[in-house]
Amino acid sequence: MTDERLARQIAFIIEIDKLKTVLRRTFLMDATRAETTAEHSWHLGVMALLLTEYADEPVDPLRVVTLVLVHDIVEIDAGDTYAYDETGYLDKAEREERAAARLYGLLPAEQGAELLALWREFEARETPDAKFANALDRLQPFLHNYTLGGDNWREHQVTPAMIRKRVAPIADISTRLADYVERLIVQSIEAGYTG
Amino acid sequence: MTDERLARQIAFIIEIDKLKTVLRRTFLMDATRAETTAEHSWHLGVMALLLTEYADEPVDPLRVVTLVLVHDIVEIDAGDTYAYDETGYLDKAEREERAAARLYGLLPAEQGAELLALWREFEARETPDAKFANALDRLQPFLHNYTLGGDNWREHQVTPAMIRKRVAPIADISTRLADYVERLIVQSIEAGYTG
Repeated sequence: MTDERLARQIAFIIEIDKLKTVLRRTFLMDATRAETTAEHSWHLGVMALLLTEYADEPVDPLRVVTLVLVHDIVEIDAGDTYAYDETGYLDKAEREERAAARLYGLLPAEQGAELLALWREFEARETPDAKFANALDRLQPFLHNYTLGGDNWREHQVTPAMIRKRVAPIADISTRLADYVERLIVQSIEAGYTG
Repeated sequence: MTDERLARQIAFIIEIDKLKTVLRRTFLMDATRAETTAEHSWHLGVMALLLTEYADEPVDPLRVVTLVLVHDIVEIDAGDTYAYDETGYLDKAEREERAAARLYGLLPAEQGAELLALWREFEARETPDAKFANALDRLQPFLHNYTLGGDNWREHQVTPAMIRKRVAPIADISTRLADYVERLIVQSIEAGYTG
């Protein structure tokens, strides 16, 4: 009985290894290659541990960490959708719902339901925890692109207006983080990283 | 003032991107390439969220997740030391202490001190949280090697006794996880993955 439960959890743990083979459009900060979604999720996890003090409303650090560690597991089936790809976004929700059902369905029922609910919470961006997790998910690739001198922005003709729209969710939960990012955007324009 | 604090945290967040370029000896479960330490840390984070119910003594999920997400950041300077490399282990502690001082020193003082203390707690393996985090750190590569049919074990002539020694910390904190792993070791011997 208990083994069956643990066996399902281990099967899920083995399955999610595939998130290490999903490539994002974001490059590593040393520009050597694209980042994997597993690496992105780890980075967000550490950021969550460090930055929850900047949330304008109280957030629960364990819930925020959980949200960011599991929110992209759906990409194993659904793939990564590039932030500025409007066509890809058309069926993103449907693809990801199917993926969530299959992947979280590997777990013991009540644990799978819990993670599914957390993933939906992240996507709905309504609770403070989900808003903060989403803010980190926007901040992290922004920092990559900024650190890389805007290579990715220039290659895809990403304008300051597009960047500001993309990072807008940060202002929903953290004035201080949003102010900081706005200063980096101004610097980026001045430096010719975007324009 | 507040900016200075946030600037240090962002500098740390940018610095730790390098953990995505540290390669481990463990291969991804699809055998395509070595795992990065950032990916390994993410995997442990999700495992922590799923498996704390198996701890024989109560553990704090947030502390366990934090321990596993930050414990390998020292590898940015100190590199990964292969589990069965006895020479590498001779100066591992010294290399990692220097790395921890530099890397956690990038953060605001009290936050850096907190992470340094957590890293030392992980290494000392004395508290239930640290024992559990260490158990996950042994379980995860074991699952990789098992899933890969023992390729890594055979290549490095890793015997069942060496595997059992390596996973022994699991029994320090979870009888059920340890029993499960022992059954997988027996299966691995029968299947010729190690011998």
